[in-house]
Amino acid sequence: MPSNKRIDLLTLGNELLNGTRVNGHLEYIGGCLGRHGVRLQRNMSFRDEPEQIRKFFSESLEDADIIITTGGLGPTTDDNTREVIADCLGLPLEFDPSIESAIVRRFERMGRTMSSSNLKQCYVPKGAQVLANAFGTAPGIWLEHGEKLVILLPGPPNELKPMFEQQVLRRLEERGLLQGAEHYLQLRTIGVGESALQDLLRPVVKRYPGLGVAFCAYEGIVDVRLSPGASNVQAHQIQEIGDECAGILEGDFICFGHDSLAKIVFDHLRADEKKLAVAESCTGGLLSNAFTDLPGASKVFAGGVVCYNNDAKMELLDVPEGILLQHGAVSHETAAAMATGAMEKFSADYALSVTGFAGPGGGDTLNPVGSIYIGYSSPLGVWSIRMLYPGDRVAVKIRAVNRALDVIRRKLKEFKVEDAIQSMLSSPPKRFN
Amino acid sequence: MPSNKRIDLLTLGNELLNGTRVNGHLEYIGGCLGRHGVRLQRNMSFRDEPEQIRKFFSESLEDADIIITTGGLGPTTDDNTREVIADCLGLPLEFDPSIESAIVRRFERMGRTMSSSNLKQCYVPKGAQVLANAFGTAPGIWLEHGEKLVILLPGPPNELKPMFEQQVLRRLEERGLLQGAEHYLQLRTIGVGESALQDLLRPVVKRYPGLGVAFCAYEGIVDVRLSPGASNVQAHQIQEIGDECAGILEGDFICFGHDSLAKIVFDHLRADEKKLAVAESCTGGLLSNAFTDLPGASKVFAGGVVCYNNDAKMELLDVPEGILLQHGAVSHETAAAMATGAMEKFSADYALSVTGFAGPGGGDTLNPVGSIYIGYSSPLGVWSIRMLYPGDRVAVKIRAVNRALDVIRRKLKEFKVEDAIQSMLSSPPKRFN
Repeated sequence: MPSNKRIDLLTLGNELLNGTRVNGHLEYIGGCLGRHGVRLQRNMSFRDEPEQIRKFFSESLEDADIIITTGGLGPTTDDNTREVIADCLGLPLEFDPSIESAIVRRFERMGRTMSSSNLKQCYVPKGAQVLANAFGTAPGIWLEHGEKLVILLPGPPNELKPMFEQQVLRRLEERGLLQGAEHYLQLRTIGVGESALQDLLRPVVKRYPGLGVAFCAYEGIVDVRLSPGASNVQAHQIQEIGDECAGILEGDFICFGHDSLAKIVFDHLRADEKKLAVAESCTGGLLSNAFTDLPGASKVFAGGVVCYNNDAKMELLDVPEGILLQHGAVSHETAAAMATGAMEKFSADYALSVTGFAGPGGGDTLNPVGSIYIGYSSPLGVWSIRMLYPGDRVAVKIRAVNRALDVIRRKLKEFKVEDAIQSMLSSPPKRFN
Repeated sequence: MPSNKRIDLLTLGNELLNGTRVNGHLEYIGGCLGRHGVRLQRNMSFRDEPEQIRKFFSESLEDADIIITTGGLGPTTDDNTREVIADCLGLPLEFDPSIESAIVRRFERMGRTMSSSNLKQCYVPKGAQVLANAFGTAPGIWLEHGEKLVILLPGPPNELKPMFEQQVLRRLEERGLLQGAEHYLQLRTIGVGESALQDLLRPVVKRYPGLGVAFCAYEGIVDVRLSPGASNVQAHQIQEIGDECAGILEGDFICFGHDSLAKIVFDHLRADEKKLAVAESCTGGLLSNAFTDLPGASKVFAGGVVCYNNDAKMELLDVPEGILLQHGAVSHETAAAMATGAMEKFSADYALSVTGFAGPGGGDTLNPVGSIYIGYSSPLGVWSIRMLYPGDRVAVKIRAVNRALDVIRRKLKEFKVEDAIQSMLSSPPKRFN
């Protein structure tokens, strides 16, 4: 039974522990496995030092059936994973000439010669299979050892990701270790707090004693995950329960699954063949970036302007000087004028704007740090709302971007109704023709 | 001896394991402790379920002297940390009326009444101290239990961070558990690969047998960390060794420490009282965002334009139509024209531009996916370079941004020389006056 396999992910590297790097491997590998109905039991990060690797790998070997490690396969002397794990498992390292020739060819293509320090990368534990590395020198290692499966992967993300997708997932699939689908249903919501959400959904949830219900709140969004848990609910019933919850949440329900707010807005606009432009002050490019991270962004994203001062707002967005003088750069009026300006300059169908004080400096009595105005412009008019967010500069930026995306998400849903009304008013109903 | 305390960070939450959230707590807490000369032994992430918490907390209790947990203190039924850890330690939970009144006051301020589900947050293990939460309902818990110190923190970052900075660090300090400075020296570099870097630095490093040298490569940047390790090098000598290494690396050395490339460029520009503008196509706002994440960004960042199509390049950046028609949007000529246009439109002293194909779509024979042109404009002229990056869309965007920041970093260093030459040429030397 695949789902009973206990999988540990061991991410090696001091840089993870001292805050100099985010643990992107956990997010990536956890996400890939999750989409195949498999979940990690645990992730451990520790230093890439022999005694640490020995201690925690041995601990994991007792607790887990499958162990995936990342990092420590490089050519430098601080790369110890291969050597220590082979030793823990009592396996000698053997020289593999095919790895050496792959590295030599790689260096030749780049017009360089192989460094002697790369030689250590040509050794693999006896009985292991090599996972070829198309984007670097360190091959991965696949090792079936008694009842245990040990998979060693290189640390650089551009080497790890294609190796994981093209080789590791395929091998796990072949051994029946993946499932078809995710083991839970996620409802993504915005606009309701975590405890209020629990209260709202209680009437539905309490009908299924033991149902797994988990909440995760971040930057204005709350994810609700439903799973059979200890109940006798069947997998196919989860969707029905999810639909009922979504109905209760109405407009605060964003989507099932993991799509970002930007992706949801992108899909709406794409379906309507509409274009969006963006004008940002305090979010400084983050709102544009939320769209441009999406493949095919150019189909809906017309462009954006980041205006950090009044001159730029006037020059690039045609914000009237009078508005800036009378109301200030952080105001409903400026937010509205920025949205209108962006819509016109980029010949877009809609525009979003954000202006405010993200902190730590700036702010005044009327608009303290954390004050954000979000403007929205459409063929039907222009709106602006004001928010006040706690947190540091980066947190305020993220919350403001999420809120701006939510403004257009809700407006696009409304607009379909307004659109229908408008076309009814502007042309006589068909049956009277 | 503070540095001998073994510290485990336990980050709870299924959302960390299934890839729906990055483990920001590890980055944040690891970074805070690192800046006080203390390093984490290990980070473990696991599900917020009673049996998982019991298993891995007990494991950590054997291995570590100080255990910090995050998450699972909320009001919902899937929040179990407080209850399970109290049980593991054999401590009863006691009702604390001061927590209840703090929550009631909090809800009153927001014009709401406390939900009954918040009541569970008013219980603390016997003998524990409460860490007040100024930004949410869940208090933190500080528990000295025999030789062990257990610290429970809430999951939401905007609640955890002020609690950690204002209460946890101070208490650790009072107990002599922090040190004055970091225990290693980091050299941040760009432009040299990891193994070439090791070869370059070998002549210096080999003079100090046992010296700790660790490498960490990501998106074009390689960090080198020097520590006394097993050598007899004293802490104060590390800086001398670092200076020698920096001298060897010349322009490829970015800085000591953890400053981002954007911060380095920001500091250069701030010192010179110069302003930078940005024009982006494929990086889509990420370059602007790198600057606007920095407090005080408006002092050096004039603004940016994200142009996803030719019309916007002409309309907002005055890129001549002839250049777009003759050379295409992804070309040296367009990159240069975008940089010039941004410099003029924002009245900036310098400008950077990026145009290219980040993938997965786009690209042609001449410029396949991953082709990036970076333009740089200054009062002395305009330059463009071409790069070809592997990896997915987001990876290409990050690499392009790092490279663009490095272009201006190097140019600003050069410029001081050019500037001096120019002022010598344009005015007779002072001694002849």
